[in-house]
Amino acid sequence: MDTTLTRDVDRIDTNLNGFEESAAERWARFKPIQTGEDYVNSLRGRDITMYMFGELVENPVDHPIIRPSINALARTYDLAVEDPELATAHSELIDAPVNRFLHIVGSPQDLVMKNRMQRRMGQLTGTCFQRCAGLDTISVLHSITYDIDQKHGTTYHQRYLAFMKLAQQNNIVVGAGMTDPKGDRSKRPSEQADPDLFMHVTRRTKDGLYVKGAKAHMTGGYNSHWIAVMPTMNLGPDDQDFAVVGLVPADAKGLTYIYGRQSCDTRALESGQIDQGNAKYGGQEALVVFEDVFIPWEHVLMDGEYEFAQEMVSRFTSYHRASYVCKTGLGDVMVGAAAAIAEFNGADKASHVRDKLVEMTHLNETIYSSAIASSHEAKLLPSGIYMNDAMLANVCKHNVTRFPYEISRLAQDLAGGLMVTLPSEQDFDHEVAGPILKKYFQGRANVPVEHRQRMLRLIENMTLGRNAVGYLTESLHGAGSPQAQRIQILRQMEVETKMEYAKDLAGIVDKD
Amino acid sequence: MDTTLTRDVDRIDTNLNGFEESAAERWARFKPIQTGEDYVNSLRGRDITMYMFGELVENPVDHPIIRPSINALARTYDLAVEDPELATAHSELIDAPVNRFLHIVGSPQDLVMKNRMQRRMGQLTGTCFQRCAGLDTISVLHSITYDIDQKHGTTYHQRYLAFMKLAQQNNIVVGAGMTDPKGDRSKRPSEQADPDLFMHVTRRTKDGLYVKGAKAHMTGGYNSHWIAVMPTMNLGPDDQDFAVVGLVPADAKGLTYIYGRQSCDTRALESGQIDQGNAKYGGQEALVVFEDVFIPWEHVLMDGEYEFAQEMVSRFTSYHRASYVCKTGLGDVMVGAAAAIAEFNGADKASHVRDKLVEMTHLNETIYSSAIASSHEAKLLPSGIYMNDAMLANVCKHNVTRFPYEISRLAQDLAGGLMVTLPSEQDFDHEVAGPILKKYFQGRANVPVEHRQRMLRLIENMTLGRNAVGYLTESLHGAGSPQAQRIQILRQMEVETKMEYAKDLAGIVDKD
Amino acid sequence: MDTTLTRDVDRIDTNLNGFEESAAERWARFKPIQTGEDYVNSLRGRDITMYMFGELVENPVDHPIIRPSINALARTYDLAVEDPELATAHSELIDAPVNRFLHIVGSPQDLVMKNRMQRRMGQLTGTCFQRCAGLDTISVLHSITYDIDQKHGTTYHQRYLAFMKLAQQNNIVVGAGMTDPKGDRSKRPSEQADPDLFMHVTRRTKDGLYVKGAKAHMTGGYNSHWIAVMPTMNLGPDDQDFAVVGLVPADAKGLTYIYGRQSCDTRALESGQIDQGNAKYGGQEALVVFEDVFIPWEHVLMDGEYEFAQEMVSRFTSYHRASYVCKTGLGDVMVGAAAAIAEFNGADKASHVRDKLVEMTHLNETIYSSAIASSHEAKLLPSGIYMNDAMLANVCKHNVTRFPYEISRLAQDLAGGLMVTLPSEQDFDHEVAGPILKKYFQGRANVPVEHRQRMLRLIENMTLGRNAVGYLTESLHGAGSPQAQRIQILRQMEVETKMEYAKDLAGIVDKD
Amino acid sequence: MDTTLTRDVDRIDTNLNGFEESAAERWARFKPIQTGEDYVNSLRGRDITMYMFGELVENPVDHPIIRPSINALARTYDLAVEDPELATAHSELIDAPVNRFLHIVGSPQDLVMKNRMQRRMGQLTGTCFQRCAGLDTISVLHSITYDIDQKHGTTYHQRYLAFMKLAQQNNIVVGAGMTDPKGDRSKRPSEQADPDLFMHVTRRTKDGLYVKGAKAHMTGGYNSHWIAVMPTMNLGPDDQDFAVVGLVPADAKGLTYIYGRQSCDTRALESGQIDQGNAKYGGQEALVVFEDVFIPWEHVLMDGEYEFAQEMVSRFTSYHRASYVCKTGLGDVMVGAAAAIAEFNGADKASHVRDKLVEMTHLNETIYSSAIASSHEAKLLPSGIYMNDAMLANVCKHNVTRFPYEISRLAQDLAGGLMVTLPSEQDFDHEVAGPILKKYFQGRANVPVEHRQRMLRLIENMTLGRNAVGYLTESLHGAGSPQAQRIQILRQMEVETKMEYAKDLAGIVDKD
Repeated sequence: MDTTLTRDVDRIDTNLNGFEESAAERWARFKPIQTGEDYVNSLRGRDITMYMFGELVENPVDHPIIRPSINALARTYDLAVEDPELATAHSELIDAPVNRFLHIVGSPQDLVMKNRMQRRMGQLTGTCFQRCAGLDTISVLHSITYDIDQKHGTTYHQRYLAFMKLAQQNNIVVGAGMTDPKGDRSKRPSEQADPDLFMHVTRRTKDGLYVKGAKAHMTGGYNSHWIAVMPTMNLGPDDQDFAVVGLVPADAKGLTYIYGRQSCDTRALESGQIDQGNAKYGGQEALVVFEDVFIPWEHVLMDGEYEFAQEMVSRFTSYHRASYVCKTGLGDVMVGAAAAIAEFNGADKASHVRDKLVEMTHLNETIYSSAIASSHEAKLLPSGIYMNDAMLANVCKHNVTRFPYEISRLAQDLAGGLMVTLPSEQDFDHEVAGPILKKYFQGRANVPVEHRQRMLRLIENMTLGRNAVGYLTESLHGAGSPQAQRIQILRQMEVETKMEYAKDLAGIVDKD
Repeated sequence: MDTTLTRDVDRIDTNLNGFEESAAERWARFKPIQTGEDYVNSLRGRDITMYMFGELVENPVDHPIIRPSINALARTYDLAVEDPELATAHSELIDAPVNRFLHIVGSPQDLVMKNRMQRRMGQLTGTCFQRCAGLDTISVLHSITYDIDQKHGTTYHQRYLAFMKLAQQNNIVVGAGMTDPKGDRSKRPSEQADPDLFMHVTRRTKDGLYVKGAKAHMTGGYNSHWIAVMPTMNLGPDDQDFAVVGLVPADAKGLTYIYGRQSCDTRALESGQIDQGNAKYGGQEALVVFEDVFIPWEHVLMDGEYEFAQEMVSRFTSYHRASYVCKTGLGDVMVGAAAAIAEFNGADKASHVRDKLVEMTHLNETIYSSAIASSHEAKLLPSGIYMNDAMLANVCKHNVTRFPYEISRLAQDLAGGLMVTLPSEQDFDHEVAGPILKKYFQGRANVPVEHRQRMLRLIENMTLGRNAVGYLTESLHGAGSPQAQRIQILRQMEVETKMEYAKDLAGIVDKD
Repeated sequence: MDTTLTRDVDRIDTNLNGFEESAAERWARFKPIQTGEDYVNSLRGRDITMYMFGELVENPVDHPIIRPSINALARTYDLAVEDPELATAHSELIDAPVNRFLHIVGSPQDLVMKNRMQRRMGQLTGTCFQRCAGLDTISVLHSITYDIDQKHGTTYHQRYLAFMKLAQQNNIVVGAGMTDPKGDRSKRPSEQADPDLFMHVTRRTKDGLYVKGAKAHMTGGYNSHWIAVMPTMNLGPDDQDFAVVGLVPADAKGLTYIYGRQSCDTRALESGQIDQGNAKYGGQEALVVFEDVFIPWEHVLMDGEYEFAQEMVSRFTSYHRASYVCKTGLGDVMVGAAAAIAEFNGADKASHVRDKLVEMTHLNETIYSSAIASSHEAKLLPSGIYMNDAMLANVCKHNVTRFPYEISRLAQDLAGGLMVTLPSEQDFDHEVAGPILKKYFQGRANVPVEHRQRMLRLIENMTLGRNAVGYLTESLHGAGSPQAQRIQILRQMEVETKMEYAKDLAGIVDKD
Repeated sequence: MDTTLTRDVDRIDTNLNGFEESAAERWARFKPIQTGEDYVNSLRGRDITMYMFGELVENPVDHPIIRPSINALARTYDLAVEDPELATAHSELIDAPVNRFLHIVGSPQDLVMKNRMQRRMGQLTGTCFQRCAGLDTISVLHSITYDIDQKHGTTYHQRYLAFMKLAQQNNIVVGAGMTDPKGDRSKRPSEQADPDLFMHVTRRTKDGLYVKGAKAHMTGGYNSHWIAVMPTMNLGPDDQDFAVVGLVPADAKGLTYIYGRQSCDTRALESGQIDQGNAKYGGQEALVVFEDVFIPWEHVLMDGEYEFAQEMVSRFTSYHRASYVCKTGLGDVMVGAAAAIAEFNGADKASHVRDKLVEMTHLNETIYSSAIASSHEAKLLPSGIYMNDAMLANVCKHNVTRFPYEISRLAQDLAGGLMVTLPSEQDFDHEVAGPILKKYFQGRANVPVEHRQRMLRLIENMTLGRNAVGYLTESLHGAGSPQAQRIQILRQMEVETKMEYAKDLAGIVDKD
């Protein structure tokens, strides 16, 4: 127990015994991960309760629906091996290279490199690779723990640094548990009929505290090693027990995962791989339920300091809204897929086709710009970490809520209607139907019909199917829905200053 | 055999015997249909070869994936019973009321009523009800057969009228077989390596002719009683055998259907109905292959008059592009669904929510306007039928290639991210997982969680799932892809006249 | 005095003498107008106080800045002579043909014809021809006077018909005096510090009543013969004196006009005509101030019936928002001008140029559609007049607040930067500078440089200059700013019905 | 004469005498400029022929139409004094601080600082301050002269550096003379009927060469001290004489300026300053004609190396398209003006008003992002200078061709219709009309009517008037019209690489 946290002491129920797993015991289950394969294996053998389609999932790692999401995350490990300059960085904390997804941001350039890595990952996987929210959580906790300590004399920042050393050494995946179910949106956490609709502390012992609640649509929930829980919105004095930040291993006692389904998810259960569009990679969102889950004090990074909740959320969204630059990697895939199908159809020379590819690229690079600019304009925070420019991060994300939809529409335009009328892969393999289909779906000579099939299915996958979830709807709502960005832009637009510019030029002299 | 077709005689291979089904025999299989139930039964017991997922479909009518598309079409029958003013019209041909989907357009108001009925059907089914292309085919054949007869002294128009009498009396569904696979798009029909990539006449006998080829993404293919095959593009002197129009029963010998798959199609095979979003209604597209299919002369409406192909396509698209007004019915459902989910979430009072509903409505009504205006501006053709304004029909369709995507994006905005992370229906029914989900996905009090589930699944269905095929991608490509409308607008924009307006105002006097 | 208006009697100040101009005296000044020339002359010799640029305007009719606006209105007379089918209609009221701008709407087709005439006028003048608001005022007063009479037993409708007979016989221009200055927009009329910020009755005598206030940005104010004043917004019981509708001759005692200036207005004062862009035609907006202006009872059409104010405004905007279809005539000029300048520059074959012309046309025809559809969907009101569909009229106007801006941008795109860097006409005429300019601004051979000048100046005129006021800003604010349409769409969108459609398809059964 | 240019020798006409001004004589006329006032004075007393409105301009510096453009440029000097960190940089060339508009780009951060200065200048002036094109010319000539020297053994780079030393020491303004009139756009320079439509060398002597031609819409033409002429497009072997880069003092013999007129330009000639909107600042574009203008060899930086023309243009546009970030400064003024007028009208609390301000800001910051990102991603060129990322620069400019138009539309929306119907300033000053206007145009209490007038006029100025030229049309065409950016994006979009991403994910293995 942290002796500096004297005010916690008063709230601790000393009658409760402490037969809970210690922080050290929790870490003891890990060993350093190097490759994607190591990572996949690291997920095996965990005692985790997960439901999908009304059943307990016995072996999630090898489940055909789940595995693509694991593959996408695994790619973050392999990329670090293949291209260390891009995907690793030197950590001052452990004086060694670490995966950039665990790196503490030491400069604006670190943020730019993060953006480049994110775009690259998007190009390689065509989906959400699920490791950004954790990285952005790590980043925000660096400065927030520091700031709380400055005000309250707590030692959260040291706990944080201690955790991060082990996290970096073991090269783990941190998942971000942020979004509470929220219930009735017109009510505050403490006003909800069911308090569990926002995660909160249920009791405190000398060893740690217990939380109850749920984190909704948690990206890569199961695929994480540790989950950082944190408040989802600004809190008031009455919401003190909701002001909790803690780190929990994904296989901690009391956790339940319920898998979110996606458009076309069950195609992964079909024979064949063509109709999946992108058979190897996919995303994952889950509801993660916390039923009185224990967190030892060493892993508690906020407990009651409600006044920091708003700033924490604000900094998190600043980091995370720029992380949506990953969608430009998916956008690159969309441009490539649209160009490829136009070529397969024999239409690539048409001026309107090229013009649409240009438009797609223009929109995609516009998104990229906002992220890079936001990172470049990063400012140093007192804790020694850099934070990217919040206005431009919001602008980046706001463009992400619009442009992928238009890029997607243009890709469907170039794909042609066949994208949604193509018979199944199994029909192409049938002894009677197959030859008929191959005869009639022949496009440009020399292009195998199967290539056309595959490219159409990829575009379907990204615009209607499984990865449309990530490319479109998640682009809309992830890191905050459009209106959240507009509110943030409103707050930061410095309209008074701009009114002064206008008054000066208009020759208006305010007499005060 | 039609004696007026003397030029056909020369091409007839009299060595071939004529043991083929006669026109009368073909009609003998039908009896008048009244209700939706009659219609569903009319599809049973037909000897039709259809493949789906690599297997022959034994009983298509009761197949869970196919049935929703049949239900949608059946609704056109029931609507005529429920609301005869809207969905029937008096046929001068048989001097009796007929389903408006078989009515010959006698006035601009007939076209307006068609549009209203289409919107209504969209509201009722939330999908493509598959009977418009056939109606628009009927319409175009009225004037084209007349025009050919005027030039060539043929009797196609009488054959057409004879067919239509029976069609109206039996209240059948006509499917439009228009889109050839096209192969290499840089080559004309007669230049393709494989001539079958465009449908063509393979031989002629004294009884009729035989066609070979395929019609791609044929809407409601299996759900039709008769299929009208016709050319898909302008033809030249070398393409004479491709200039064929004929009427074929859907169960004629030589036909093979291969079912086009759709996003989330297999959810219809799952237990439960919630996750389907719209369990009752869906669309259908199929590849229909014609392997030397016989058409008796009585059902041949063009044979070689290639110079009418372009005008036929142009008139067809004029009718059909305005038929996309049906999407405003789906748009009404989207507006309603978005408003409902906002209410369920407790967010319906937010000004940005109402503003988005207004924007959705504005876009939707803009589409509606173009169709109504196009119908209102209809002109009488020499055959006595009315054709809607082609420019405004193209404008209507062109807006349909854009606005449903934006409406869909806004609906997803109001739905919230839960739309793509919601666990499966089966999880909600599970004894352990179910109560957890119901606890944590409770929104506004008094709104059952299941209502939220259902509404989210409906929006998913229409923006990513099965009916997104119809609401989005078909909106883009059906009746011609966006560029086809632009070409048509270019042709009809009367730029010279407009240049004169500008020159007059600018004071430019051309000296000629 | 109208004996039925007994409640007025109580409010009449019988101490006031009645030495005011009678209704008959007012009409005596008019004689029937046939041609545009007649019309121009009809404006001469009136005793009207008008200010412009800080001076009293002696002879407005021949003032170079004002005359183009008179020319535009005059064109409505000439068009009726040239094309009577389009621009006249048979009036049942006087059993004779009348200018369509004075015709009482007897059918939906009358409304459609109105729209066509408006588009044609836009093509001919490239500006606002200022006669629509009056026509729409006439239309709304038909039904509102009827409805008030039905409720209150007044005889407004008969007064209205008597006025209209003379108006039609004399073929006059009615101006719409609607927009009050409004002052502090957060306060109601009766709450304003200065009551004159909304027009109101100051006293009543046995002969008539007196109004005070002002009507802002009154279109074609000076160019009208009579002005109809009416309330600008919904009124409450405290606003009774503001609930006044009356007809006033434009040269009545107590009226003052102050001319609104426009971008580039003074180019009309320069030598030469090229730089004006459209030297012949322009628009006009004026502030018209009413300083205790007398209205005889015969010309009073509402006095105190505040509860009809909202409906009157609502019906007026329904008529008037569809009248913005006139902008499609200007849009035709823009398309023509853009096509012409592209040709003059030698760029007309470029695919992107043609594509931009198509886009301009598509947007323009989309606007046209909404107006035509709104007119087609007109409904009969109890007074026997037809009113176009309000939803579609709002949709029309809302598109008008957007698309002309994009059309304008595209026209500027095709014009090239020279549009804003071209030296003055006087430089082209200079003995030294002129030949230099003609040498260096030669584009395509055979196209005189002056043609290029003129076309660039026309595009400047419509996108930045004098007629940009009408084509752009008036498109935004005339007949209500964008938000006014959104509010109206919100009211009429029948969201409950649409929610039912969605619930039905989602399988939600409300238990009531 | 440069002895290394042996190939030039052959082309020199030694019969011509060399009684021309030497390079040294030209420089002798300059002395170092510090303040804006110094700058204004530096323009006085020059022997320059300039035409405007058909007359020779005697004293351009004090001409009311011209002076605002001089003021805008003067602000670049004053800003350097006020905020040296932003607007100056240390020059290694002269080892002293220099105005950033003359600084040679030594790092990506230099480019970012340039962007920030440009935005700031836009905020301060609300117009085009005319010094960017010169800066970008300086930048491109650094690397191009170096590259030519590397290939041809010429000494252009040393000449360049010598010129730049003096330019920096004297703190002069360099104007960019780039855009040739081009004549018939379907023909190359050497194919034009009149060769002068592209600037070209007419003869060469031992002292220098002579050029003839014109540079169209030259920004700040008269306000420059030196003009850099350079080719406007790629050139071929037949265009060798068109491949010329040279530096010419603005008052060199043989130059003629013809002033480009702007919307509302003559308001500057009226009494009063309110109606000008922005009375102090404006832009300037002129046609500059070169009639056999002499350039001494010391100031010739390209002569015949046609193969570098394309790359020079490409690098120039890369620098210059990002310079359009200045429009975000104007965008800040627009946001401020729109917010101010909403407040003056009493409408600032309406949710739609705030939402429109957010949208304006979002679009504005999106533009800013692209410029900053482009600068951040700058790469080092062999000559030692940095060049910003070309793709992102094109994306920046392409957004500039769109978003200011929408920002402008939204500002007009918030301004209200009064913006285009407001009477003249002189009417407000009139003894009778003035009090009427002040009475009726009173908005929110405490806000003087004059403030409303001024703010409306400022918005008019920037959306329709004089500075709309810079904010809108120049945003469209400056540094290349939209299509030019699309072509550049097409070239750089690396579609093959993106097709590979798509093929990999679709599982397509190309067999080569």
